[in-house]
Amino acid sequence: MDGKLVSQAVKDRLKQQTEVRISEGKKIPHLAAILIGNNGASETYISSKVKSCSEIGFKSTLIRLSESISELQLLNKLTELNEDFDVDGILVQLPLPKHISEQKVIETIYPSKDVDGFHPESVGRMVQGLPTFYPATPYGILLLLEHYKVETKGKHVVVIGRSNIVGRPISIMLSKNEYPGNATVTVCHSHTSHLNEICLQADIIIAALGKPEFLKADMVKQGAVVVDVGITRVEDQRKKSGFSIKGDVDFQDVSDKCSFITPVPGGVGPMTIAALMMNTFKACAAKDSI
Amino acid sequence: MDGKLVSQAVKDRLKQQTEVRISEGKKIPHLAAILIGNNGASETYISSKVKSCSEIGFKSTLIRLSESISELQLLNKLTELNEDFDVDGILVQLPLPKHISEQKVIETIYPSKDVDGFHPESVGRMVQGLPTFYPATPYGILLLLEHYKVETKGKHVVVIGRSNIVGRPISIMLSKNEYPGNATVTVCHSHTSHLNEICLQADIIIAALGKPEFLKADMVKQGAVVVDVGITRVEDQRKKSGFSIKGDVDFQDVSDKCSFITPVPGGVGPMTIAALMMNTFKACAAKDSI
Repeated sequence: MDGKLVSQAVKDRLKQQTEVRISEGKKIPHLAAILIGNNGASETYISSKVKSCSEIGFKSTLIRLSESISELQLLNKLTELNEDFDVDGILVQLPLPKHISEQKVIETIYPSKDVDGFHPESVGRMVQGLPTFYPATPYGILLLLEHYKVETKGKHVVVIGRSNIVGRPISIMLSKNEYPGNATVTVCHSHTSHLNEICLQADIIIAALGKPEFLKADMVKQGAVVVDVGITRVEDQRKKSGFSIKGDVDFQDVSDKCSFITPVPGGVGPMTIAALMMNTFKACAAKDSI
Repeated sequence: MDGKLVSQAVKDRLKQQTEVRISEGKKIPHLAAILIGNNGASETYISSKVKSCSEIGFKSTLIRLSESISELQLLNKLTELNEDFDVDGILVQLPLPKHISEQKVIETIYPSKDVDGFHPESVGRMVQGLPTFYPATPYGILLLLEHYKVETKGKHVVVIGRSNIVGRPISIMLSKNEYPGNATVTVCHSHTSHLNEICLQADIIIAALGKPEFLKADMVKQGAVVVDVGITRVEDQRKKSGFSIKGDVDFQDVSDKCSFITPVPGGVGPMTIAALMMNTFKACAAKDSI
């Protein structure tokens, strides 16, 4: 499954829908993104988010803050963005400097602007099947499965990893009564015994544990669908940068057995951004009826 | 596993802890319960909750409202209870009359007084591992497993049913990194294929689908732990009342194979009330530091 291609397709569709909004005199979606400090990976992530906004025709505001900003100053900034009607979605690029509480930051953003879907209320609403923003990475996986018309109903999905950001939400979303969903879902983690046996039963495996090349061919049933959420920098002398990006799946070993598989990079990564754009669009459209 | 006995043990412990609070001049836990209309089952549930409060030494306020109360009147009543410092926990006995939105009622109760654990924010905080109130029935199941020192780490738990009230939350709670928890959890539901095979792999089965005597011996591995959450009224001419209460497990068929099993009635039911009392105590104790 080609995340770059599908991400582009999602963004193209959003671009059209945004042009329609403009022609109808409706509000243009507006994402406000906060970047603190000078982390290299964060710079890369945030700049591709901002770039996606401009490709689609969204407004975006990138707010750069110094590493030394106090927690209170950041929370005040968020309150200001909460109150700004023109801003539809707010995201704070993680991780944060150690002196700032991630949880406080997440809980300060209004659930109605929480396009990352990390607020406890957003998570609770997702669990209960109420309208809300799905967290971007698992939502990106759903968009990918949908694009390739992967059947999920009655299928056995094995999720490896139970993080708040990916493993836990995707396991809930795929067992809900909707499409993609209605799967029988097993959540595995570091305490799981017989992991190989369990994976071998899976029609769909979501690898989201953060261990490079963990999933091998002897854990995968012939014809399975494999989604690789891992993205770890591994030292690599052959690369100019000195490192290469590895997923949680040993792609070369596993790919022959799969009916569908996502590469790393170019799989789930770009879909995360597409999902964020979808959420921003929805946050804006939700205001139409106000 | 004897829910009556363990429920009593939990309540006895709470009674002691409440006496300690009183001797220290601290606030007495206070539960406010709202009952609307004259549903027979609701009357039974709410009166055993109120009775439990008085056994333990909690204050309780039972508010009876007529079936014809408007939604706004009910929400106003809830706001009043939210603002009343003396009230620690608020519960509204479900189901509600059709003209009142259950969701609005649930979301009006302050998360800090949401001892039923049904507010989206409570659910999200549970998922994310933040301090919160666990919904009463799954919390009661945890208390039961804890009392009988049932090992859950690395065990395979199969949950049948994905309701917001039981199946979904217990599946999340048992796969969290705590005790009881750290299990490998599979969520099954009406679209699950090969349910028998999946159940046969389970070390622990939680039956929460609401179909009387659904789980049979040929679905249960020798030595498994079976928790029966079902509680359905089935016509029974031999009973004076004209009905008997059936669980989701065919107890006679299954019990010989189990290392532990809960009966119905007298299993999970009484534990739900014990869990509610635990939550009310915690809601009160959380105010000590204010």
